[in-house]
Order: sequence, then C-alpha cells, then structure tokens
Amino acid sequence: MLRYTRNPSTMKATTQFSSSPVRIGVIGAGRIGRVHCAALSRMSNLAQVVMIADFVEQAAQAAAKEFRIPRSVKDWREVVHSPQVDAVIICSPSDTHYEIIVAAARAGKQIFCEKPIDYDLGRIDDALAEVRRAGVQMQIGFQRRFDANFRRVREAVSQGEIGQPYTLHIVSRDPAPPPLAYLKQSGGLFFDMMTHDFDMARFAMGSEIVEVVSAAGANLVDPEIGQQAGDIDTAIVTLRFANGAVGTIECCRQASYGYDQRIEVHGSKGSVSIGNNYPNNATVQDGQSVHRDLPLNFFMDRYRDAYALEMETFVRCLMEGKPVPVTGEDGRVPVVLAYAARTSMKERRVVRIGEFMSKL
Amino acid sequence: MLRYTRNPSTMKATTQFSSSPVRIGVIGAGRIGRVHCAALSRMSNLAQVVMIADFVEQAAQAAAKEFRIPRSVKDWREVVHSPQVDAVIICSPSDTHYEIIVAAARAGKQIFCEKPIDYDLGRIDDALAEVRRAGVQMQIGFQRRFDANFRRVREAVSQGEIGQPYTLHIVSRDPAPPPLAYLKQSGGLFFDMMTHDFDMARFAMGSEIVEVVSAAGANLVDPEIGQQAGDIDTAIVTLRFANGAVGTIECCRQASYGYDQRIEVHGSKGSVSIGNNYPNNATVQDGQSVHRDLPLNFFMDRYRDAYALEMETFVRCLMEGKPVPVTGEDGRVPVVLAYAARTSMKERRVVRIGEFMSKL
Amino acid sequence: MLRYTRNPSTMKATTQFSSSPVRIGVIGAGRIGRVHCAALSRMSNLAQVVMIADFVEQAAQAAAKEFRIPRSVKDWREVVHSPQVDAVIICSPSDTHYEIIVAAARAGKQIFCEKPIDYDLGRIDDALAEVRRAGVQMQIGFQRRFDANFRRVREAVSQGEIGQPYTLHIVSRDPAPPPLAYLKQSGGLFFDMMTHDFDMARFAMGSEIVEVVSAAGANLVDPEIGQQAGDIDTAIVTLRFANGAVGTIECCRQASYGYDQRIEVHGSKGSVSIGNNYPNNATVQDGQSVHRDLPLNFFMDRYRDAYALEMETFVRCLMEGKPVPVTGEDGRVPVVLAYAARTSMKERRVVRIGEFMSKL
Amino acid sequence: MLRYTRNPSTMKATTQFSSSPVRIGVIGAGRIGRVHCAALSRMSNLAQVVMIADFVEQAAQAAAKEFRIPRSVKDWREVVHSPQVDAVIICSPSDTHYEIIVAAARAGKQIFCEKPIDYDLGRIDDALAEVRRAGVQMQIGFQRRFDANFRRVREAVSQGEIGQPYTLHIVSRDPAPPPLAYLKQSGGLFFDMMTHDFDMARFAMGSEIVEVVSAAGANLVDPEIGQQAGDIDTAIVTLRFANGAVGTIECCRQASYGYDQRIEVHGSKGSVSIGNNYPNNATVQDGQSVHRDLPLNFFMDRYRDAYALEMETFVRCLMEGKPVPVTGEDGRVPVVLAYAARTSMKERRVVRIGEFMSKL
Repeated sequence: MLRYTRNPSTMKATTQFSSSPVRIGVIGAGRIGRVHCAALSRMSNLAQVVMIADFVEQAAQAAAKEFRIPRSVKDWREVVHSPQVDAVIICSPSDTHYEIIVAAARAGKQIFCEKPIDYDLGRIDDALAEVRRAGVQMQIGFQRRFDANFRRVREAVSQGEIGQPYTLHIVSRDPAPPPLAYLKQSGGLFFDMMTHDFDMARFAMGSEIVEVVSAAGANLVDPEIGQQAGDIDTAIVTLRFANGAVGTIECCRQASYGYDQRIEVHGSKGSVSIGNNYPNNATVQDGQSVHRDLPLNFFMDRYRDAYALEMETFVRCLMEGKPVPVTGEDGRVPVVLAYAARTSMKERRVVRIGEFMSKL
Repeated sequence: MLRYTRNPSTMKATTQFSSSPVRIGVIGAGRIGRVHCAALSRMSNLAQVVMIADFVEQAAQAAAKEFRIPRSVKDWREVVHSPQVDAVIICSPSDTHYEIIVAAARAGKQIFCEKPIDYDLGRIDDALAEVRRAGVQMQIGFQRRFDANFRRVREAVSQGEIGQPYTLHIVSRDPAPPPLAYLKQSGGLFFDMMTHDFDMARFAMGSEIVEVVSAAGANLVDPEIGQQAGDIDTAIVTLRFANGAVGTIECCRQASYGYDQRIEVHGSKGSVSIGNNYPNNATVQDGQSVHRDLPLNFFMDRYRDAYALEMETFVRCLMEGKPVPVTGEDGRVPVVLAYAARTSMKERRVVRIGEFMSKL
Repeated sequence: MLRYTRNPSTMKATTQFSSSPVRIGVIGAGRIGRVHCAALSRMSNLAQVVMIADFVEQAAQAAAKEFRIPRSVKDWREVVHSPQVDAVIICSPSDTHYEIIVAAARAGKQIFCEKPIDYDLGRIDDALAEVRRAGVQMQIGFQRRFDANFRRVREAVSQGEIGQPYTLHIVSRDPAPPPLAYLKQSGGLFFDMMTHDFDMARFAMGSEIVEVVSAAGANLVDPEIGQQAGDIDTAIVTLRFANGAVGTIECCRQASYGYDQRIEVHGSKGSVSIGNNYPNNATVQDGQSVHRDLPLNFFMDRYRDAYALEMETFVRCLMEGKPVPVTGEDGRVPVVLAYAARTSMKERRVVRIGEFMSKL
Repeated sequence: MLRYTRNPSTMKATTQFSSSPVRIGVIGAGRIGRVHCAALSRMSNLAQVVMIADFVEQAAQAAAKEFRIPRSVKDWREVVHSPQVDAVIICSPSDTHYEIIVAAARAGKQIFCEKPIDYDLGRIDDALAEVRRAGVQMQIGFQRRFDANFRRVREAVSQGEIGQPYTLHIVSRDPAPPPLAYLKQSGGLFFDMMTHDFDMARFAMGSEIVEVVSAAGANLVDPEIGQQAGDIDTAIVTLRFANGAVGTIECCRQASYGYDQRIEVHGSKGSVSIGNNYPNNATVQDGQSVHRDLPLNFFMDRYRDAYALEMETFVRCLMEGKPVPVTGEDGRVPVVLAYAARTSMKERRVVRIGEFMSKL
C-alpha cells in the first residue's frame, strides 16, 4: 500500500473550508496554470480563484480576464501573503517551486504544486519539513493518477481482480521531443519525463520500488539531443518492487502517431491493460486498410478530464478536511528513482534504492 | 446536401452580439436545462445566462444558485419579454414549446429549442412561420450532430472517404424503458425515441429520406408497454434516400449493457462505423473472459461533450451572424418521418414521404 | 428450435459406416469440389474419396491426381451407381442438383449437396420426397453454420446468454460483383446471395421467419447489373420471426475492403456480435492513421475451417448414425424466403410466409 | 540483417528433389512429431513421410497408422541410414538432438531439428560443423517465425513501415507452468522458454543482440518452482541491439487467461504490435461486462498454421534448392543469449554478448 500521510493538525486547519468555496491563488499563468484556472472556474461552488500571479504581468492580466479572476499580480509573494488566499496552486517554472513552497507553508497556505518539488533531494527534504511543520497539506501534480484509464488499472490491482502482481509494463511516448533549449536544462529524460512514469509504477502496483535493475538509454530520435543536450531520448528501465514483482518503463521522446501512454499489469489471476485516448472511435474501411484517426496528440487533451478531477480532488480534500491523495513524499520518491536510474545507466549495474538513499 | 436556411435579416439581427457575450434566458430548470446552464457557465466569454425560469420556482432558484444566474423566475413570459435577454433556451416540457417559440419569436429573441418543436405538423408550420417572419434564428436540440463520433461519420461521407453511399444502419438502444406514465404521453417510440435517429439518418447521409419502406414494431421488452401505453418497444424502420441509398434504423427501449448508439454507412469506396463510449478503455483478462467495463449508461454522460459543443455552436453562430446548423426545418422533418413510420406500420405498406406530406 | 428431421431408417442405413471410413464420390471438380476434396484428404481415418466426376474430364483427372483419388470419370452417373461409393458430394452446377439428388437417393447413397437444391419449389419438394423415401440422409452446404464466429452467436442465443432475442442484423457484402454473364443466370440477389443469409437468420435465431416485412432493393454498384442482368446489387430485407423478434439482412455485391460477413443479435439480457476474419491481427500506427490489413477477401479463405468442419460433421454423422445438421428442409426454406422477398419488393408489401407457401 | 548461410554444395545436393516429393523420415512420434506428420500429410505433392521412429514402438506404430506412413521403427538409426529417406525431421527428446544431427549429416540427409540443437555450446558448434562439412541443410524449429502475426511485424520492420527501430517489447506467457519433473531438467526458464523469444527478438528486429543489459528473475507463480527446481518463473530481460535499439522480453510461466504471445516494435515512423489469437471473435455484452472468449490456450492451436507453413517452407526449400530460412546458426544464438541472461541475472551486471562468447 502507498502511504498517505495523515496529519491531524491539517485536519483542523482545513475545517474552516467546509461551508464556503476554497479561495485560491494561482502562481504561474502559463499553459498549465490556465488549465487549472479553467478547471476551477467550472467548480465555482467548491473553489474561487481570487488572485493570479505571473512575472510576465500581461500573462497574469490576460488569464485574469479570461477566467474572471478579481486580481492579477506580478510577484508571487503577494499571493502567498494575501489574507484572501486559502490555498496556492504553484505552476511557475520548476526552479521556483522550492522557494514558493517554503514561503507558502510558512504563511499557512494549503499547497498544490506541479512536479517537481525540486531536483535536489536536500531541498526537497527541506520543503517537506517546512510543510510538515506548518501543518498544511501539499498535493503534487501527478495528474495521470486522476485519469480514468490509469485509475481502472489501479482499481483492478487493488481490488484483487488480477491477483498478486507479477509484472508491470509502462509505455510512455511523447509525440515529439521538446526544443533543444528546453532539453538542455530539463534535468534529462529520467527526471523530466520518466518521473511521471515512476509515479505511475508505484501508484498502479501499490508497492514501492526497491531496485533499479537496469536503465538502458539510447540516443536514436535525434543526434542533437545527445550532442547538444547530453541527453538520451529513448530508455528502458527495469524495476523490482517490494512485493516481488518486476517491471519495465519504456520511454521515448517521439511517436509519429501521437501521445502514447499505456500500462499493463499481469498477475496471478489475470492481467489489466489500457490503450490510448482518441478524438473519436470511428473505423473507416477502404481499399487500402481498416483504419481510425490517430490518438490524441497532446497531453492537455489526453489528460483534460484528469486535470479537472485532480483539481476537484484537491479542493474537496481541503473542504472536507481529508488528506490529499498525492503527497510531498509522493513527489520525492520519483526524484530518488530518477537518480537511481541515472546511476544504474552510468555505472552499468543494479542500484538498490536503499543503498542510493543512504548516500544522500 | 442538407439545406441550411440562410436568412439575411437574421444576419443583421445578430450583428449586435459580435462584441459582447450573448445574454441568455433559460426556460426550464430540469435535467436538460441544467446541462445547458453548466455548458454555458464554462464559456463565459461567449455567453451569460442572465435569467432562468421554471414553473417549479424552487427548481429555478436552485439552478440560479448553482450556476450563479442573477435572476430566477416562475413564469417563462418574464424571460421572453425581458430586454436583458438576447436568446432563449427552451427546455420546458414538450407541450409548451410551441407557445414559447411563438412568443419568443414575436419578442425578437433568438431561439434554441429542445426537440420536438411539437408533434402537430400544423403547429410546427405555424411556429416556423413565426420564426421566419420575426427574422430570428432557431436551432433545434439534436445534440448527436455535435458528438465527435457521429461527426466523424458525417465527415467520412461528405468528404467522399467512403464514396457514394449504398446503405445505412443505425442502432439506437436505451438502457431501460422510461416509466409507463411517461410512455403513455410520449407520442410513442417513433416520435419520442426515433426522431433522434431520423435526424441522424439525414445528417449522416447528407440526403433526404423519400420513402419509409417498412416499419416493423414489436412489444417484447415489457408487455405493459403494449397493454398500458399502447406502444411498441422495439422497431426496425427501413428507409430509402433521395440519393438512392437504403437504410435501417433499429430502436429498442432496453439494452442490459447500457446506452447503445451506433451507426454504419457503407459506400462505393468503403465503410465507416462507430462504437459506443466507455468510462475507460481498460481490458481485464482473467480465467473467465477478456472483458471491459460496460459502455456509458446515460445519455447525459455519453453526450456531455456534444451538449457543450451544441451550445457553443449556437452562441457562436449568433455572435458571428452565421446561420445556426440545426434549423426549424430540421426539427420538422423527423416528425413527418415519425408519422410516415407509424402509418407504414399500421397500414403495412410502403409510405412515400411526398404522399404523406400532401395529406397534411 | 430448428427442426432436425430424425429418420429412424436413416439410422439403420448408416450403421454400416461405424467401423471403416466413409467411401465418397465427389461430383464436380470445380472450386468448391476441390475444397471438399482437400478437407476430406485431411481426415483419411473418417473418409476416403474413391471417385471424382466432372463433365470437363481433365478437371476430374487433375483433381484425382492432386488429391490421390483412385478414379476420375466424366459422367456423374458412374459415381451415383458405383457400389464403391457410400456417399456423394454434389458440387456440380446448380441446375444439375435436382437430377443428381434424385438419382443418388434412388441408388441409396447418402448425399451432401451444395446449395441450392433447386430454385423451383416443386422440384425441391420432389427431391426431398425422394430422399425421404430412400431413407438416406441429405446435408445441404450452408457452410457458415460451421464457422466458429457464427457458431458462437448461435451458442450465445441458444444458451440464453443474451436472453430472449429482440432483434437481428446481418451484414453480408461480397468484395466485388460476379461477372454479368453469371449474374444473368444467377436467379438474382435474393436467390444467389441472400439464401445464405436467410439460412443464417434461422440458424442464429433458432426461430422460423414468418414474415418478410419488406425488401428494399437498389441498383447502385453498377448500372449494368440493372440494365443487363435485370437485378439489384444492394438490398435490405426486414423479417419477423416466430418468436416475435424482428431483424434485417443487408446485402451488397461490393465492399472495397473485402469480404464482410457479420451478425448481431440483441436480446433481453444483452447482445452478441461478430466481426470479420483477417489475415493477421497486427496494428500499425504511423503519422497518418492507426491501421490494420484488410479482412480476408475471399469466401474460401474466410470459410476454410468452416468447410472442413462441415465435411467432417457430415462424415461423422454418417459414421455414427446420427442425423446430419443441415437438412433438405433447411435447404428448402431459404428458397421460399427468396421468393417471398422478391414478391415483397415487387408488390411493395408485407408478405407472410404462410400466405406465400400456400400459393405454391 | 539476419544472416542466412547460403551453401553452394547444398544447392547441388537438393537439386534432385525438384521433380518428385521429398521423402521424409520422422524421428519422434510424440506431440510435435505428430503435428509435423499431420502437416506433411496435407502436402502430399511436396513431401511423403516414408518412415517414423520412436523408442516407444507403439507410438511409432500408432502414428504410422494415423498418417498412413508405410513403415515404423523403434531405432532412429534406421531412419538416418535408410536410402529411402531424403530428409529427417528430428522431434525426439532434446538430449538426443546432437547425436542424431551428427549421424544424419554424415549420412547426407537434409535436416529439420526442433529447438534446441543442444544446450552445450561446444556440442552445438560440433553439430554445425558436421552439417557444414556434409553440405546438407539444417532448419531449426522456431515456428513463430511462420506465424502470420509475427511475420507481419517482421514485414513492417523490414519494409520500413515503422522507420528505424527504437524499442522492442515481447510478452511471452504460458497458460500454466509445466510439471516440476519437467522443470527440473528443462535447463531453466531462459533456456527452455525464452530461447523462443530471443529468436523472435532477432527475427523481428532484423538486428543482432549485442548486450544483455539486465535479466531480472522472480519466483512468484509457485514457490516449488524455486525450491524444488531451482528455477525462476517470471523474468524480464533487457537487450541492446546492434542497430542501437533497446528492448525487453517479459516471460511468465502462468497466464490465467491462456497463451499470451505478443510483440511491439516502435520506431522513427511509427509502431507495429500484435495481439493474441482467439477461437472466435464474438463479443458478448450483458449486464456485467463487454466480453469475449479467452485466447487460445495451447501453443499447438495458436501455432497450428505456423507449424504447417514451417514444414512447407522446409520442404519447398529442399525441392527448389534454396537455403532454408532458420539455420543452425539461428539455433545457436538463442542459446548463447540464454547463457548471457543467466550470467547477467546471477552476477547482477550488464553482459556483452561478445565478451560472453569469448569465454566459451
């Protein structure tokens, strides 16, 4: 079972929300910030975005106009310190997350933070400590956990439909690699892309990863990714779980046919697997082939409903004084796993998570 | 091609909306009225619901609260005559549609009306005449036309992907029959249920139906439907189209596995077909079978996105001064076809639509 | 339930086969005759083809050589009168079936006859009477009944998996129309093509057809089929069954994507449906679409296993003294239904099978 | 590209077959021997089984009777030295393969041998040397290469449909583990089960494996497999190919739902994947789920057609003097890979195939 931190002081802190909508401050008016604003605007009885911040001031203003948010600011500190704000949604660039989390926690705000908390494990631990000390809650943005397909896999495993898990296979392919400029500062495939899959592996299995058996990387999609960004674009990581099962995560920066996100778990009583999402389910048969349209090409389409449910769950947990389902610890583990995978690839050996963590 | 009435006076009338959101009055705060309110609340830059009416006043008040609608009233006449309202959405009981349409048209309001306009062809003609005279637009609520699957079928046909259409097959099954009390006053299966399918047949084929070749009805699901409501619960109607194609619509009031809405068109270059929508796409294999969860069981889930696109299209057409895509004439034809089907079943003969219409 | 004639005298007659392989004479060395030879050659412990006849003598010789058949002849009478032959397989042109059946029955041979027995109901009745009188068995070549997919549908219906049947839909599309020369003497679509589907309708439902509600024909695939052969190429027939269910058969002479043979039965507890057979199940996703190879294009590929099981069943029934599963009566009914459909189309009316049969 | 040894002396040797059927001697009348006999009996114009041997004499006699083989013997040496025999099919227990191959090669017979040649690499090399020296051909029984689904994957890769391969994933699950007695002398999962998958990996990719990145084994299905047979029952092997691609093979001794054999290759232009084979394609929908029958449960059903094509290809190559498609070298490599995988698992490290081979 995954551990869900239950913090009694949090319970108290959130009691205040039970009767009126949670007052939200959004930090970051980029793509994902706007997705959350849109989702929140559809649940006005649960939450109200009262402020939005972006260091590009026009972006904050535009979002404020579009989503009827009363106030837009340039400096996220105004959000964190506003007495009007019960909870902050952190969607700013990754390297600002740590600082904002610490400030928000100290200000007693409930926190939703996009992944990653940070890529430095020391700073992650500091941030988690601050959150704990403040008695606030923090939910991390692993939206796939709220996708209907992945949830059904989790359910099949946790309800015993497939018995004791034996193996796991995750396929995670992006339609196309991001720009080189992005890749150069992304932290690399294991951190930037595969942390989502590490989280999914833990979530689907309901068991912790104890060992990175191997991490095989390759630079096949575009030589510049290797030469310029010093990164791989294709990787297979083999994992061993605390429950004895073994599994693989296969990541690739490119899939000509669209966004490919699948998982299969096989166990003693059977298996469960999911496919992709499509814009429609029409089948056309002509003289050449039996075909259908390509799967959704963009994570924001694929996970549209997941983002909404993620936000709704966060807000409902706050209102009902329940612990949020994706904790700071859940944000930390995938980063550990990314370090372990990188080490395994570089040193060409099995890396036990325990061993690795003791190093830090 | 389906005919879309383009009315120049309408164009002028709608020009006013181009800069600000359309101000909407909703009539009827029941299930479907609330669906439209929810959809409209998500497109606040396009439309604003300014009033809602329901003869059950509490229903109007509750909806007003939920969707932050400034004003709720008991009498629809207040909506129709309010100077604050540009367009009305008619979601009240079917037998009130005629009267409201006429009043709204005379008041110069743009109109969205749930099907049916009426089941009396004379009153339908009156209503259409009033709308035409007033130079307003009226869109009829055939939401399936806005469903991604059905649209893809329409596209395959209209783009020539399957060549010249030869045959059509529509399957339309409800999860379970409505209560007998409803059935008794529903107008019968051809009117209550199959008008949606008649509309889909025209839409998918892009050709008018010229002949009901036969209409075979049966009372198999529940004997009370025959004995108490004098209705059938299962029917197959065979149609001939102006383009020479032939087709069938198969309707049933009951499907143990959920809401079943499919279509297939076969033509000279190939075929296109669609399946149902599911809550997830997970496949579970165990010792008994390879299985997946049942399709969505409820039309409001299946057509959630279709209802939203329908409403958005209505509002955008008003804002941009374009003709709405499902006209009063599109609302009239399925009723004619329902009469033709009923006649064909009763008199056990081919009914030409032309012949039938001249009778009226 | 379908009626399977159980003839006690037949039982006795077939007892002789129980210990040694059935000695078979094949009449007709064309495509289908060779399919049966190939199937029989794979079950040498059950049957042995001892003779083959074809009025094109070289065809008989070639088949004899290919399938190691000891003797080839030109005149089918030699087969029918050979004391070496226990059973005849009639694969000669349709217009010879009647004469051969009568002769074979009189000679006391067991009979397998490709459909149709004849298209003249009087001659069919004569042939059935001769078979009955002789106390031999006759199985008719409706090979679809032996296809794994169609059998699974039959099983789902007969085992109550879908409850009481409400509706049936059969799709039957050939890849391309046969040559005009063939069409001109084919008897027309209802006789040449749809008799297979009428048989399948009875088989799948396990209930007799009591009414042709309508038969809508069209000439859409190729104008010459109408002008030269006086035939239709596309048809939808609506049927009513003794069990109250209604159904449709949709036939078309052309499907660009291959051989399309599907069926769906919907009932009180659910539905069962089948798809086509494919040369492989690989899915390819590329930048254009998600696609798979076309279904099998030829009935001999699609029904390869069905033909083998059909022949094995025939031979086993003879060896074990059991009644064959597709009787002369099963060969007769589809012809009656073809007449009823033709009448319904021409006279544009409902045709009750009872009414029609009394006319004959 | 896979290397296909082309031996000019072989070409000459096989010329003799071009006009008459190849005369076959089958060694081993067990399950697989009988499968080959059945396949060969259906292609009598290409091959004739003239002798069958089994050290259980009754087994040889029974098979001879069933497949009309003129002669049955107890000692395989009689087959190998018979002047009536052109080619031998070796289906005897694995530990006899080496000796029979050597004797058959020395006797100038063409050879088809079930996998493995042997599990001792020295003996494999000896056997291959003898075959080479004798100028005969030897085909190894990797029947999956002749399965329509796997062939379609190979075709998609070799024809460039998916571009440059990036990743491979093979799933290989047996319905249930074999008896412990068998497992104890099976050589272990990597040798007994995964050699088939290693062969498929090479075949599908058209590129050699250069590295076993890791081999993660587990004993999850049945503790006795570990305790009594000292074996694992679940394993994931990660591979690196000469073309730069990476891939995984996931093997499990148990799948509650049947025989599960799938593969996916992802590349620069797209992906190709296959599913399982089923006894029928019927879908049943009822109040519980949408389901279909389980996949085929037995490798002899799943690969029925593959075995027949394998045998036909062997015989045709002999008749036409062409090199056989699965050579002795193809039989050797998977054994090397099994050793590499076992070493990788035991020593918990990356094993380069080159390094490993030099050890031998």
